[in-house]
Amino acid sequence: MPELRKDPIHGRWVIISTERSRRPSDFAVEEHRPAGGFCPLCEGNEDRTPPEIIAFRDNGTPPNSPGWTLRVVPNKFPALRIEGDLDREGEGIYDKMNGIGAHEVVIETPRHEETLATLPLKNVRNVLLAYRDRTTDLRRDQRLRYVLVFKNHGVAAGASLEHSHSQIIALPIIPRRLSEEIEGAKTYFHYKDRCVFCDIIRQELQQKNRIVTENKSFVSIAPFASRFPFETWILPKTHHPSFEHMDLSQYEPAAQILSDTLRRINRVLTDPPYNYIIHTSSFPELDAEHYHWHIEIMPKLTKVAGFEWGTGFYINPTPPEDAAEYLREAK
Amino acid sequence: MPELRKDPIHGRWVIISTERSRRPSDFAVEEHRPAGGFCPLCEGNEDRTPPEIIAFRDNGTPPNSPGWTLRVVPNKFPALRIEGDLDREGEGIYDKMNGIGAHEVVIETPRHEETLATLPLKNVRNVLLAYRDRTTDLRRDQRLRYVLVFKNHGVAAGASLEHSHSQIIALPIIPRRLSEEIEGAKTYFHYKDRCVFCDIIRQELQQKNRIVTENKSFVSIAPFASRFPFETWILPKTHHPSFEHMDLSQYEPAAQILSDTLRRINRVLTDPPYNYIIHTSSFPELDAEHYHWHIEIMPKLTKVAGFEWGTGFYINPTPPEDAAEYLREAK
Repeated sequence: MPELRKDPIHGRWVIISTERSRRPSDFAVEEHRPAGGFCPLCEGNEDRTPPEIIAFRDNGTPPNSPGWTLRVVPNKFPALRIEGDLDREGEGIYDKMNGIGAHEVVIETPRHEETLATLPLKNVRNVLLAYRDRTTDLRRDQRLRYVLVFKNHGVAAGASLEHSHSQIIALPIIPRRLSEEIEGAKTYFHYKDRCVFCDIIRQELQQKNRIVTENKSFVSIAPFASRFPFETWILPKTHHPSFEHMDLSQYEPAAQILSDTLRRINRVLTDPPYNYIIHTSSFPELDAEHYHWHIEIMPKLTKVAGFEWGTGFYINPTPPEDAAEYLREAK
Repeated sequence: MPELRKDPIHGRWVIISTERSRRPSDFAVEEHRPAGGFCPLCEGNEDRTPPEIIAFRDNGTPPNSPGWTLRVVPNKFPALRIEGDLDREGEGIYDKMNGIGAHEVVIETPRHEETLATLPLKNVRNVLLAYRDRTTDLRRDQRLRYVLVFKNHGVAAGASLEHSHSQIIALPIIPRRLSEEIEGAKTYFHYKDRCVFCDIIRQELQQKNRIVTENKSFVSIAPFASRFPFETWILPKTHHPSFEHMDLSQYEPAAQILSDTLRRINRVLTDPPYNYIIHTSSFPELDAEHYHWHIEIMPKLTKVAGFEWGTGFYINPTPPEDAAEYLREAK
């Protein structure tokens, strides 16, 4: 059973994963993981993943067989497990709980050579709808407090499989940085009676020099205090605290701007490794006024030195105004 | 001039570095940086670095010539610059200041093939004394509020030069994670009237299963909520808030445990890339009761996915009890 442990100084929770336990000799292997070879996520290999939770399929094709455009399956090596009770206990001055949660994989396409950036718009929209459906379903479990949707693309960004996929982790806690972000937005709201993200959008649309692209409903920007070169945020122009509760009509423009932004990043940086995370409120009724859901995309272009995540202090060699200009001009 | 920018939601500061500005095509190059070739940090190449600030030298050898065992030089491509006034200004809702500060390189040995783990104890002690001297000197500058001492070892850990070195960055702000750590320790102290680090040391010395090694003055542990496989902290057994103000007699046992710990990590993990950061209080008179300086060593064994630094939430595949056992048994 995996274990959740809390650092007594920072209050951050860490998963100590027993399912994936690694001995010293296991780490060297990872560096040389082959990109090719057998792929358990490809069409035809449905029996090599755990049974699907949901799928978008041609009419009449049975579950766990070919004929799908998207599948969601449990992670074969989950960081957290859904079975059991959420026991919280102390160990001297330390706090821990058992690793209750869920860990799922969204297989974005049946074809190995496609990526989210090359998929047709309709399929990108389906990926976002799958995020919504799974988030909504997992949030019904009262033990779980946050559903984290993210994507690792490329080995350098932490992807262990080449085939285009994203991940969903449902957690019994709210990750530290996300609760800090919500608190930061709340503090700003209390001071100004305005949403900080709405203020950012207003200023960026006026200044224009950090805009990457936009459509009727969304804007994509290089944030003023970008931590990483070519960091890009996608924000809905209309204030809304939660990704999974937004109006169904918004998933098409959301898919359009995500696809457009990823294509620009691919063109300028030649298919770089990247991560994205959906930042959403777990408790939209509480965060309705001050929080504003968005997607943060982080291309992995530099080796992030340990001191950067140890200190929360970043040195970014590419001014976001330059990054936005490159991405804006990419056709 | 580099620029410091503050994120309006999280309050974190980021250096937008103009000295190292990178265009899209520059990033691919980095991946293939040769390990060999000419080294500006080797003995005999003193004219290829900026003039030395301090050095430990054989008697009578002139500055910036051979005959040294350690040199501290300004970084040739500094993230921050010492010249100028610290102007703070707004840009709409955003806050920024100009990039005042210092960025220095501690060249730990004249010989290219040596590492901190293979250096004689006396030289490791000199490295720590150089950190102390430079920190003390830089802290005299009233504009600077934190001196960050850290080491990137190996390309995967962000080192751009193979030759053994560490870095010192003096900042006009306190990095977010470090001020949070100090605040966390303060909260614990207010609640219990005890230092959280002293409590950790007491419990670890009793439980023993997360101890890596110890000497009379220091203990090296795998922390209970380790974020990374084989993460290791070195803590002084006697409460003290600040690395640079500790008694001179403590630099020898500090060097001994740092060297011993790094050797164990090398033996178990075959010279892995790693980072370490010295966590110290900038204002020991304010933090005397609740803060406890220490060193955090983070081997870089897994690709840290962007979601981990985006969320502050970590999945660690190696329980710290296992990591400590491997390191403890390494002779």
